[in-house]
Amino acid sequence: MTAKNNQKVEPRILKGFRDFLPDQARKRQYAIGIIRRTFELYGFEPLETPAIEYEDILLGKYGPDADKLLYRFEDLGKRKIALRYDQTVPLARVIAQYENKIPIPFERYQIQSVWRAENPQKGRFREFLQCDIDIVGTSSYLADVEVLDVVNSVLNKLGFKNFKFLFNSRIMLFNKIEKAGVPENLRIKVSREIDKIEKVGWSKVKKLLTNIPGIDENTAGKIQQVFKLWELSQPDEIGQKMNRVYEEASKRNIPLKWDLTLARGLDYYTDMIFEVQVNGYSAGAVCGGGRYDNLIGFFAGKNIPAVGCAFGFDRLIEAMEELKLFPKNILNSSSEILVTVFNEKFLNTSLTVLNLLRKAQINAEIYFETDQRLDKQLKYADKKGILYAIIIGPDEKKSNKVTIKNLFLKSQETVASDKLISYFK
Amino acid sequence: MTAKNNQKVEPRILKGFRDFLPDQARKRQYAIGIIRRTFELYGFEPLETPAIEYEDILLGKYGPDADKLLYRFEDLGKRKIALRYDQTVPLARVIAQYENKIPIPFERYQIQSVWRAENPQKGRFREFLQCDIDIVGTSSYLADVEVLDVVNSVLNKLGFKNFKFLFNSRIMLFNKIEKAGVPENLRIKVSREIDKIEKVGWSKVKKLLTNIPGIDENTAGKIQQVFKLWELSQPDEIGQKMNRVYEEASKRNIPLKWDLTLARGLDYYTDMIFEVQVNGYSAGAVCGGGRYDNLIGFFAGKNIPAVGCAFGFDRLIEAMEELKLFPKNILNSSSEILVTVFNEKFLNTSLTVLNLLRKAQINAEIYFETDQRLDKQLKYADKKGILYAIIIGPDEKKSNKVTIKNLFLKSQETVASDKLISYFK
Repeated sequence: MTAKNNQKVEPRILKGFRDFLPDQARKRQYAIGIIRRTFELYGFEPLETPAIEYEDILLGKYGPDADKLLYRFEDLGKRKIALRYDQTVPLARVIAQYENKIPIPFERYQIQSVWRAENPQKGRFREFLQCDIDIVGTSSYLADVEVLDVVNSVLNKLGFKNFKFLFNSRIMLFNKIEKAGVPENLRIKVSREIDKIEKVGWSKVKKLLTNIPGIDENTAGKIQQVFKLWELSQPDEIGQKMNRVYEEASKRNIPLKWDLTLARGLDYYTDMIFEVQVNGYSAGAVCGGGRYDNLIGFFAGKNIPAVGCAFGFDRLIEAMEELKLFPKNILNSSSEILVTVFNEKFLNTSLTVLNLLRKAQINAEIYFETDQRLDKQLKYADKKGILYAIIIGPDEKKSNKVTIKNLFLKSQETVASDKLISYFK
Repeated sequence: MTAKNNQKVEPRILKGFRDFLPDQARKRQYAIGIIRRTFELYGFEPLETPAIEYEDILLGKYGPDADKLLYRFEDLGKRKIALRYDQTVPLARVIAQYENKIPIPFERYQIQSVWRAENPQKGRFREFLQCDIDIVGTSSYLADVEVLDVVNSVLNKLGFKNFKFLFNSRIMLFNKIEKAGVPENLRIKVSREIDKIEKVGWSKVKKLLTNIPGIDENTAGKIQQVFKLWELSQPDEIGQKMNRVYEEASKRNIPLKWDLTLARGLDYYTDMIFEVQVNGYSAGAVCGGGRYDNLIGFFAGKNIPAVGCAFGFDRLIEAMEELKLFPKNILNSSSEILVTVFNEKFLNTSLTVLNLLRKAQINAEIYFETDQRLDKQLKYADKKGILYAIIIGPDEKKSNKVTIKNLFLKSQETVASDKLISYFK
């Protein structure tokens, strides 16, 4: 196979998918490091599941709108398969499949890609990384609080200063909708429209409500009335458990804000729901989640309560970029030092220095060509963002020294070879 | 959506795919950490590419056998797409697509999953993680050596003691095949059969060779003769560049071993090829690679030389398990400490201790139920592999102390609350 036969293939990627070149990939690694470390600080255990699942594992768990966005295929063996849509349903499957191997309550985190055939737009991709935490096997309000707490802690450690947790209860939400005279089988549909109030306002939402077969203008009016009333009477009406979550979370300085129309998209939530919005980042919530006490039953054959959430990692990164939260030093290259090569005869000396640096755990690389002028080698280091270049020419070799050039400060120093490592340590 | 309607879905995963429960996931994280750190020590930059590519990007680059193993689909927009088969072809696409953004030579590493519709067997999965390094844009033999060197370093740092690099040149291999009178268009097919000599021996290989249309028994005999001859005359016949790679690699204590019949599966290799075999691990090479000077031309429209390799991460892990190379301390849980809850009244005290530990960066969790007996809480900690439990009952609270139970040594100590952090640091 050669390129000679003019078969040039246009290099391109699919819409909604992204390449991460080194500067970007480094930023992602930095954030993942903080997120992983914080999850473990709170005692969450790592879990990984396959990218591909049997279709029936995923289908019907997220609601009809989401089902349309599933990447679904047939494999060579004509099995119906689908790409991971989130990490919650795979977790539910895992809990049921390895019931005896997993200590309950099970606190796990999972950091993997998910795929959705979405319409790509700002902050919305077809492949994106999710960072999930979930606590399975307890109904304790303390578990809900822990989830909120670790999210708050992650955001603080990533450098976010201004964000809020919009916070609601599916039970309370459904109670309100029922109070307005909506039959039970329509309440999820109605809740999805109510969720849009913040964005589009009541008059638009009322129109959307009457588009639902079974909801007339009268009912839509009643729905509005109920929600307006509840907004006024809010503090008294909070369910007892949600109240305790709210109080304990407030004690831990988590910036909660009741949003009585918040519904969240996924069908499987049962009680607490929340999403985190960052001030100054407009492309949507960077984290969302809640309690889902019935989902695992689909696989386990018995109800196992659970609470958790997912960070939209790519939105986090976008928000961090916009708010300039990345420290400057992660923008450099992997190599701290380029060891230059004076010429073929000096190659061995350069290789000895290279080896010395790496043995001391200092990131370094060598210039691969032995016949290039020094300025070309320094230009390469500069373009890559390497901070230091080491030069060993005839003078240095004779006196057993090396010249260290700081490419950022445009300064240089000559030091004895045996002082080289301590110079960088 | 509830589980009430008896829609229980059988929890299961597809053959060749795997869940990684915490103990396993932790081991993977440990190994990835070492691999990533070593790659960066050598100056390799991180890169990430999408899981899904246009089919024409991947198809025809690996050879006809590999094409059959590509996971290929149509998406909702009827686009022909495929899942990442390796990380080398996506790298080649990236080089061509961002030619002006990427400093050349480009040394990158990439750690992502790939998918192949393989027949699953020991050490062979349908989804597996690859850890790649490649150096693009230089023909220097030093680049070949750097690839071998970083692989050697990774294996040493992971704890492997006994392994060897089987090492050959595609140019030399093809020369030999041509010398036996095989026409150029058949040399790849012939090389694939010769590759099997170590496994099945010459008599079987000769039979396989005569199955290729265009190769008769006479030619097969000549092929055997040529290779036997070369084995004897080997040292003189090594190409000049390969000789320099071999010498420099030997200086760096890389355990190279010529294997004149080694061919490697992928069509795109042009000169040096190698694979690493670990003594005591039978499921195949844990790393393989070589030089591929023509692949990038498919996308760039001009030849750009390159050399690199891929670790089969999952085989590495399997080999590390079998050879017991994982340190014992990574088998514990994420939490070092369980803070127990004496009862509802003591909850706040327990939460204060929990918060204190986490502020000091000590991994800790709290028992979520406030009405459970202490022995149940300790049993949970034990089952999870948590090392310490902290107990604060009436006595402790009164005297401003905490009891620290070492669950491994079955011992306990009572310390003043303000000495708690220093106890663990």
